[in-house]
Amino acid sequence: MKPRIGIIPGEPGGIGPELIAKLLNDAETCEKAKILLIGDQHLFEMGQTQAGMYFDTSICDAKQVDWTLLPSFALHAMDTITPDAVAIAEITYAGGISALSNLNCALELARDGIIDAIMFGPFNKPGLIEAGLGHEDELHYMAEFLGVESYISELNTLNGIWTSRVSSHIPLKDVHNFINENRIYEAVDLLDKTLRRSGVDRPRLSVAALNPHAGDNGNFGMEEIEVIGPAVEMLQHKQVNVDGPWPSDTVFLKAKAGEVDGIVTMYHDQGQIALKLMGFDRGVTVQGGIPFPVTTPAHGTAFDISGSGTADVGATREAFLIACDMVSHWEKAAE
Amino acid sequence: MKPRIGIIPGEPGGIGPELIAKLLNDAETCEKAKILLIGDQHLFEMGQTQAGMYFDTSICDAKQVDWTLLPSFALHAMDTITPDAVAIAEITYAGGISALSNLNCALELARDGIIDAIMFGPFNKPGLIEAGLGHEDELHYMAEFLGVESYISELNTLNGIWTSRVSSHIPLKDVHNFINENRIYEAVDLLDKTLRRSGVDRPRLSVAALNPHAGDNGNFGMEEIEVIGPAVEMLQHKQVNVDGPWPSDTVFLKAKAGEVDGIVTMYHDQGQIALKLMGFDRGVTVQGGIPFPVTTPAHGTAFDISGSGTADVGATREAFLIACDMVSHWEKAAE
Repeated sequence: MKPRIGIIPGEPGGIGPELIAKLLNDAETCEKAKILLIGDQHLFEMGQTQAGMYFDTSICDAKQVDWTLLPSFALHAMDTITPDAVAIAEITYAGGISALSNLNCALELARDGIIDAIMFGPFNKPGLIEAGLGHEDELHYMAEFLGVESYISELNTLNGIWTSRVSSHIPLKDVHNFINENRIYEAVDLLDKTLRRSGVDRPRLSVAALNPHAGDNGNFGMEEIEVIGPAVEMLQHKQVNVDGPWPSDTVFLKAKAGEVDGIVTMYHDQGQIALKLMGFDRGVTVQGGIPFPVTTPAHGTAFDISGSGTADVGATREAFLIACDMVSHWEKAAE
Repeated sequence: MKPRIGIIPGEPGGIGPELIAKLLNDAETCEKAKILLIGDQHLFEMGQTQAGMYFDTSICDAKQVDWTLLPSFALHAMDTITPDAVAIAEITYAGGISALSNLNCALELARDGIIDAIMFGPFNKPGLIEAGLGHEDELHYMAEFLGVESYISELNTLNGIWTSRVSSHIPLKDVHNFINENRIYEAVDLLDKTLRRSGVDRPRLSVAALNPHAGDNGNFGMEEIEVIGPAVEMLQHKQVNVDGPWPSDTVFLKAKAGEVDGIVTMYHDQGQIALKLMGFDRGVTVQGGIPFPVTTPAHGTAFDISGSGTADVGATREAFLIACDMVSHWEKAAE
C-alpha cells in the first residue's frame, strides 16, 4: 500500500500554498503516495493561481470515506479563514489561526490512523504564537497535543547529512547545563532511529564537542572528558555506530566528505552555521520524537517572494519524499 | 622602497621549508619585496631538495650590512639545529627550539627596523610548548616578547573575508564572561585597522550575535540587547562601518555573498566552523595587535605529507602578499 501523506498549507500568506500546487504538478513524485490535502479549498486554489496552474480536486470527508480510493490526491476541506482575510506576506492573527487549525486536524487524522504522515508548508512563528501556540516551537506544540513525553528534537537534513542537537533555543551561557549523558544518549538514539526510519540501514553518526579544539585534552573545558566521551562509549557498547567527540570546526568537514550520515551537535548555532553555509534552505526539517513522520521544508514563509510564483519547490519535494520513505521504513526500524 | 619581509621556516620537520622553497621559485611574487630568509642554511636547502629545486643564496649578517642591496633574497644564517636532529613529521624538543630561536631573531630584526614584516612557516604547537613557549599560542608569546600590552587577537582571512574574535581558547561555558563592550570594541577596532592596513579603504564589518536567533528579542539571552548592540552603536558613532549583531548562522552567508569584508565573532567555533567549511586551509592567519605585520598560512605543519614535495604553496603565497600589502598601507592606516 502506498503511504498516505497529509499535506497542510502552513501560513496562508507565505509560499506554502504555491509550493503545494507545484508539488501536485509533479506527477512522478506524487505517484509515490496517496495525498490528502487538509485545509481550505480556496487556499489550495490560491496556490495554484500563484503557481499558474489549475487542478480538479475531489473533495471528501477523510474521517468517513476511504479517500485512498480517490485518484492521486483528494481534499479534506476545512474552513479556517475567509478568502478576504488572507494577507499575502503579512503576519496576521487570522493567518496564525488558520495554520494552527489545519495542523490540529492533520495531527488528529494521523493520530487516528487515517493518514500515515504529515508534510506542512512553512509556518510563520510570530503568527502561530499570536494564535496561541503556547510553546517555543511547533514541535513542542505537537508533542503536547499528542501527549508525547519522551525525548523530542528537531532534526535537519540536507544532501543526505542529518543533524540533531542536545540543546536548542536557549541562551549560550546555559548550554553547558544541558550537556549530560542522558540528553546526549537521547539525541544520538533519536538520530539513529530517524535515519533508520528514513531507510539508512546502519547510520554512521558523529558527535560534536562542546569546547574549542574539543577541549584540547581538558585545557579549554572538561565536558568532552567527563560527559560527552563517556556517553559516546555507552552508545558504542549498545552497538550504535557512533564516534566523537570531534572538534565542531572539523566534524562538518567529515560530513561534507561523505564520511558520516548524521551529526549530533551540542547547541543550536554549532549545527546551523554549517548547515546554512551548505545550503540549509534546500534542506528538510523532521519533527523528531513524534509517533509518525512529520516533515517540512527547512526554509521559511519567504514573505519577500510570496504570491509571486517564483518559489522553488525543491525542498518541499524533498520533505514529501522523506515522509514517504519514513512511512515505508517506520515499523521495520522501530526497536 | 619595496617592503622588507623576513621569512622563517617554522617547524623544521613540517612543510614550512618546502613551502618557502616553492615561494622563492615564484619570481613574479617575490618581485614584490626584498626577502630576508632567517634560519639555518641547511633547513632552507632541505626545503629546496624536498621541492625538487635549488637556489644560490647570498649569505649576510642583516644587522651589519644593507642586505636589501643583495639580489631578490638573502640569508641571515642561524645555527638553531644540527642537520641530523631534524626529524621529518615528528614532534621534537630540538625542532621546537629551532622554531622558537628563529622566531626570536625575526622579532628582534623587526623590532629594530631591519625588516618590516615577518612571514613564518607553520609551527607545531606541542613542539613550541615543549621548547618553552610559556603561552597559549605564538601570538601571546610574541606580545610578551615585544612588550605589547594592548588588545591582541588572531585574525583569519580567506577569499577576502576577514574574521576576529572576542574570545578564543576558553571553555564554552566561560564565553559569556568575555562578552563586554570593551572587548567587542577592541575586536572590531583591530579588525577595522587591520583591514585598512591590508589596503581596504573603508572596511564593511558585521558583528555576530552570541545567542541563537540573536537572542530572539531577549527570549534566548540578553547579551545582544544589553552588550553587543550598544557596543556596535558606540562604534558606529565613531564612524566605524559596522553593523550587527547578526544571528551567527546567517552572518557568514552575508560574507559569502560578498556583502561584508570582516566579521567579528564572539567565540572560537562560531567563526572556525564557517571558515573551515569555506576552505580555511587555503586561508591566512594574521597576528593582530603586533606593531608590525606578522602572517602565516592558516594550515598546520601537515606531518602527513611533510618531506614529500606535494605541499600546496597557495596559502603561503597569500600570506606573503598580505604581509607586503600591510607594509605598504601600515603608516597610512595608522590612527
